[in-house]
Amino acid sequence: MSLQNFSIIESTLREGEQFVNAFFSLEEKIQVATLLDAFGVEYLELTSPLASPQSYKDCATIARLGLNARILTHTRCTIEDAKKAVDCGVAGVDVVIGTSSLLREFSHGQSLEAILDLAQEVVSFLLSQNVETRFSTEDSLRSDFEDILHIYQAVDALGVHRVGIADTVGVGTPRQIFEIVSRLRQAISCDIEFHGHNDSGCAIANAYAALEAGATHIDTSILGIGERNGITSLGGLVARLYATDPALVQKYNLPLIRNLDQMVSRMVRVDIPFNNYITGFASFTHKAGIHAKAVLNNPSTYEILRPEDFGLTRYVHVAHRLTGWNAVKSRAEQLDLHLEEGQLRQLTEQIKAMADNGRITLDDVDRYLYEAAECQPLPTIN
Amino acid sequence: MSLQNFSIIESTLREGEQFVNAFFSLEEKIQVATLLDAFGVEYLELTSPLASPQSYKDCATIARLGLNARILTHTRCTIEDAKKAVDCGVAGVDVVIGTSSLLREFSHGQSLEAILDLAQEVVSFLLSQNVETRFSTEDSLRSDFEDILHIYQAVDALGVHRVGIADTVGVGTPRQIFEIVSRLRQAISCDIEFHGHNDSGCAIANAYAALEAGATHIDTSILGIGERNGITSLGGLVARLYATDPALVQKYNLPLIRNLDQMVSRMVRVDIPFNNYITGFASFTHKAGIHAKAVLNNPSTYEILRPEDFGLTRYVHVAHRLTGWNAVKSRAEQLDLHLEEGQLRQLTEQIKAMADNGRITLDDVDRYLYEAAECQPLPTIN
Repeated sequence: MSLQNFSIIESTLREGEQFVNAFFSLEEKIQVATLLDAFGVEYLELTSPLASPQSYKDCATIARLGLNARILTHTRCTIEDAKKAVDCGVAGVDVVIGTSSLLREFSHGQSLEAILDLAQEVVSFLLSQNVETRFSTEDSLRSDFEDILHIYQAVDALGVHRVGIADTVGVGTPRQIFEIVSRLRQAISCDIEFHGHNDSGCAIANAYAALEAGATHIDTSILGIGERNGITSLGGLVARLYATDPALVQKYNLPLIRNLDQMVSRMVRVDIPFNNYITGFASFTHKAGIHAKAVLNNPSTYEILRPEDFGLTRYVHVAHRLTGWNAVKSRAEQLDLHLEEGQLRQLTEQIKAMADNGRITLDDVDRYLYEAAECQPLPTIN
Repeated sequence: MSLQNFSIIESTLREGEQFVNAFFSLEEKIQVATLLDAFGVEYLELTSPLASPQSYKDCATIARLGLNARILTHTRCTIEDAKKAVDCGVAGVDVVIGTSSLLREFSHGQSLEAILDLAQEVVSFLLSQNVETRFSTEDSLRSDFEDILHIYQAVDALGVHRVGIADTVGVGTPRQIFEIVSRLRQAISCDIEFHGHNDSGCAIANAYAALEAGATHIDTSILGIGERNGITSLGGLVARLYATDPALVQKYNLPLIRNLDQMVSRMVRVDIPFNNYITGFASFTHKAGIHAKAVLNNPSTYEILRPEDFGLTRYVHVAHRLTGWNAVKSRAEQLDLHLEEGQLRQLTEQIKAMADNGRITLDDVDRYLYEAAECQPLPTIN
């Protein structure tokens, strides 16, 4: 897999709008689109212009902003929807239709033959309008692969730009995704997009498996927001790709991940999860004495992501009972206190004993260190 | 993979204590251990008794609680640590030592030959004490696989119960984990444990890949808490395994996931992430009109996890611009209002137009519905 050979289809303004808490005004959509463009995503996917009157205006406005990112919208697979999408002035249209027996029975009620006819009709129309055209099945993981293949080969023959594999319910495993995308890669010549939900915690790993198998486009959203608990998060995909090859810093403006996560968390009124990739408050913290010692010697011992590549810094936690004397020594050095190894080891035992009785603070540790060094602590500013 | 052939090593009280925000009093540890035991995990792993004086007492106390779960502690690979662990009265000891060149250079400074000698000495001692014995390398993913294999074959020959593959820095991908565990499975006869960090978003998928390849034990923590952004979360692993086979309801008391997540989030002073598996507030919400319509017809169209199996309920969001007339119809039925399809479709357009102007509430939708049905709404209780 080469990092140069894939594109991000950033869907915060489509899938993300389907997050239960999301409401984006046009002004907010422009802010999100502009910052994502500065980050460097290749595509922005917007809510269907058929969703509501304002959705049409939003789509048409963002399509005219002149961003580097190509503007897509996402519609049902009907001629009516496709026409309205083209009217908006977008560069591309992502059409979708459910192919699992569940969705055929309980959603749109169409037969596979009707789906094939519709796919060919809509794709032909969109291609005649010179817009980048994607055709995707919905709930691909619970569809018959032969059904999907049959339809995709038909639209591939028409010259469709891209087909999609969508794990709409978040049931797929990396091995399944790898298998499906590999088979598809051998059978068709157009690009392949992957869209994966995170209900069972595999959305990032599945996106990565799709790339390993030859997918060319990955759908993401900021913080992963979307229907239910969401999809592959932009920051999570970045963390995964960077862990494999830090050269990702040359492809995207990685420090903007923090701004993107903060902007969207504010707009949709959620906190950034404490354990979020890159931007969660815990991401670059180190606690146990063994970890702290090694990280102080060489951060890469326990860090696969370099915080400085994301505009962030690490934090070595000293004031707790799992601490070690190397961490305590490092804190003494930060305070410019000169203590012998024997003193530091004894102080470490004192700190552990104190921390055994309840939560302690760095201030408590510092007081011990100053006392041991027979120095006055700096006066507290009140 | 059979769901019957694996065990969970629940490490909230070891790895979880290494989360930057965590401090567990003995009383809290007993609460966590007791609830995890009621959930049905097979093992509980506790902080090393060498970490601090209270850590020793905590370990000894929990080992004597008489829980069904087997109590393990986790120590460095030294005879001193192993002896103290055995003194605590635990059923098993998990020993660990770093084998990557980075950890050998910057953490403990031992050669591979010295590690092999130490492994054999410590494992032999623990087996002589009749405790369940696990030997694991640390940072296995960045270690030379041949080095790991050499040591594991030596301790396997001694009769060790279990060896571990630890993705200590969260760099592994599912394909790598599958490959390593598969090769190990062919070379040794003892059990295989997997421990995976989540820095690059693959901790759940990697644990699943390990099981597919023949691993027998998976490390988890509640909410995934641990060093940095943590490890495979208990709820996430459960979601993944249930998505593959809902028969998991027979193995564990799944509705307790909610109690466990809530208890630990309170103790470590974080919110449950909005997008957390199963227990995040968004997990069983449905928003877009197409989704809502199908879910109202048959929930499995867009749900791979049945909320009722986790003691939870779904929520179909009606009051927004992506809504559809089937969702509006369902809300009218909940209110016992009888409206024709034409009225409902017109109301849906009104709701979309209103929602285009800003956030609206269910109360706004209800007011429209009551007006259309020419009914008085129920009086608001002040």
